[in-house]
Amino acid sequence: MIDRSDSSDRGRLDAVRRGLREHGAVVAVFGLSSNLRYLTGFTDEPGERALLLLVAAEGEVWMVVPELYVAEVTAHSPPATVLPWADGDDPMRIVRRIADGLRERTGRVLVDDALWAAFLLPLQAAFGGRAFGLTSDVMTSLRACKATDEVAAMRRAGGIADRALESALSEPIVGLTELQLAGRLEAAMLARGANGIAFETLVASGPNGALPHHRAGARTIEPGDVVILDYGCRVDGYCSDITRTVACGPASPRVEAVHDAVLRAHDAAIERAAIGTPAEAVDRAAREVLTAAGYGPNFVHRTGHGVGLDIHESPYIVEGNRKNLQAGMAFSVEPGAYFAEEFGVRIEDVVVVGENGAVSMTMAPRELRRVD
Amino acid sequence: MIDRSDSSDRGRLDAVRRGLREHGAVVAVFGLSSNLRYLTGFTDEPGERALLLLVAAEGEVWMVVPELYVAEVTAHSPPATVLPWADGDDPMRIVRRIADGLRERTGRVLVDDALWAAFLLPLQAAFGGRAFGLTSDVMTSLRACKATDEVAAMRRAGGIADRALESALSEPIVGLTELQLAGRLEAAMLARGANGIAFETLVASGPNGALPHHRAGARTIEPGDVVILDYGCRVDGYCSDITRTVACGPASPRVEAVHDAVLRAHDAAIERAAIGTPAEAVDRAAREVLTAAGYGPNFVHRTGHGVGLDIHESPYIVEGNRKNLQAGMAFSVEPGAYFAEEFGVRIEDVVVVGENGAVSMTMAPRELRRVD
Repeated sequence: MIDRSDSSDRGRLDAVRRGLREHGAVVAVFGLSSNLRYLTGFTDEPGERALLLLVAAEGEVWMVVPELYVAEVTAHSPPATVLPWADGDDPMRIVRRIADGLRERTGRVLVDDALWAAFLLPLQAAFGGRAFGLTSDVMTSLRACKATDEVAAMRRAGGIADRALESALSEPIVGLTELQLAGRLEAAMLARGANGIAFETLVASGPNGALPHHRAGARTIEPGDVVILDYGCRVDGYCSDITRTVACGPASPRVEAVHDAVLRAHDAAIERAAIGTPAEAVDRAAREVLTAAGYGPNFVHRTGHGVGLDIHESPYIVEGNRKNLQAGMAFSVEPGAYFAEEFGVRIEDVVVVGENGAVSMTMAPRELRRVD
Repeated sequence: MIDRSDSSDRGRLDAVRRGLREHGAVVAVFGLSSNLRYLTGFTDEPGERALLLLVAAEGEVWMVVPELYVAEVTAHSPPATVLPWADGDDPMRIVRRIADGLRERTGRVLVDDALWAAFLLPLQAAFGGRAFGLTSDVMTSLRACKATDEVAAMRRAGGIADRALESALSEPIVGLTELQLAGRLEAAMLARGANGIAFETLVASGPNGALPHHRAGARTIEPGDVVILDYGCRVDGYCSDITRTVACGPASPRVEAVHDAVLRAHDAAIERAAIGTPAEAVDRAAREVLTAAGYGPNFVHRTGHGVGLDIHESPYIVEGNRKNLQAGMAFSVEPGAYFAEEFGVRIEDVVVVGENGAVSMTMAPRELRRVD
């Protein structure tokens, strides 16, 4: 896709500083999050110890780091002054010193959207009367368009998901619980080089398929079930996300008709995805197909969400999002149709928009597949 | 362990209301978190859609729920009025209506410690000039003492971790990358009925073992390496957390001496853990053994952390925590010793405090194990 002029840590930090100035903010504060990884190469799961990256519009960059993490953080050579604190110290004392040293006496503080309240409340105290906003104002546009190396990681994560499907369906699934099948898929991804799973695997069998957010449970998969598999993994932090629907035994004409309509909606949406197209037009393309087939009311969610270091990020493919798609934007296309207490069908691929249209990161066959 | 008088959702909500009144607060707001699971049986990974549980000290309970989740939320029969919002609506309009309806015009709002800034900032606007605090003020004491069913889930999660270790070490590990060994451990847990992994598996081989928070990486495990395995899984939401240290081939006398001291520190800490003992005394018991052995400076972290629905929660086993241990408290005991650029040793089990001392949730042999 696009090759950014400067996707180095320093180039990205410069972009954050420009964004801060554009948004009337003096400093951005990030926690353990995908933004931190994007800006420094380092992250970890968020926890009770404050690890903060502060980027001042004026130029300085600090990392407030629990002593326990100092060696790992410095191993990533972050372009920042590392300020350690020990178990028992108050990390907000360090933050207050930074806050008091900012030369601009007015101007907002932007904080990571996913920063915990346990850190935001003391940050608000440390920064006195300043107004607070969210770093998404700056980061969304920065992260939405993927650079070549980011797309390469997403493609690897997609390939692993493709191969895990083949592996998981190579043996019968009838008689497994949903959780067992989820475990089989996850183990197959890890064995093929995934760094981790991207989100809790969804296996929704039979009537559970009618609940779009049903996760894997104790239900045993039975002959005749329609089963939705929605899963993905991470490579170098970047996510894959794929959904396929399979039938355990012959599918009824009704299930076949629904699957056919969802697949046509899926293809129509991908066809519509191109540089300059409003995001909502992609949603409409899928919705029109399902509405024409009589399943409009059964498509109860948006068509997709951006994917990258986060499994849900910008751009959202939803009515009302009039922003135009740009080269390098990566998002899911996942129309579905749900029939309460009966079954559900969903087909999903993550695509990246480029000069020649949208390219899928996953290649597993999309047709309704009959399995045992 | 203890059998709570009322560990039902309603009993727990009553306890939250009492806690709110004790802390001068009028309402608690929870997001998608372990607290939500604790109070309603329902949770999911936090995401960009606001799903909030509001518990008023006055008695009312509301859940603000994205339309997509309504069926699943109501399937858990939460003792709450469910207020749905559709993609495109502003969920904070619902919150403002609740805020405006509270009869007590003063009094704080407590929010989930892990609530995202993206929700906290609009909540602060919705609740006007009220002061904000954290629900941990109320939830910590409520959750720290586990009921019988919670301990049973932790024991199952521990048993799965034990068996996964046997499975993962039944074949040679030399020649695997750290990530491959991590994948083997995770797959073994999932295959044995884990609902998921509890945290990203740590495999720290050779010199990486000297970094207490090193995660699995691309390094290949070599003959002669000392390898730290730190991992766990979830059963019904509850975590296991175990660390074992193994030697690939014969261990040097120095490694054996360090492992012996860490194991004695581990046993001394567990021996000290009892109802009425201050948490810091357990930390000291481990630290004294390692200090006497000459490894005091190499034990660079606290002795442990509480474990339950969260992998890190109260009580923290650290100098300065003078609170007395109570029946049903569950926490890790994980002394270690780290030698920069050489190796590290850590031994960890989660224990639950009861009338007869502390009982371990994991049983895998703690001795230095020689593997291929």
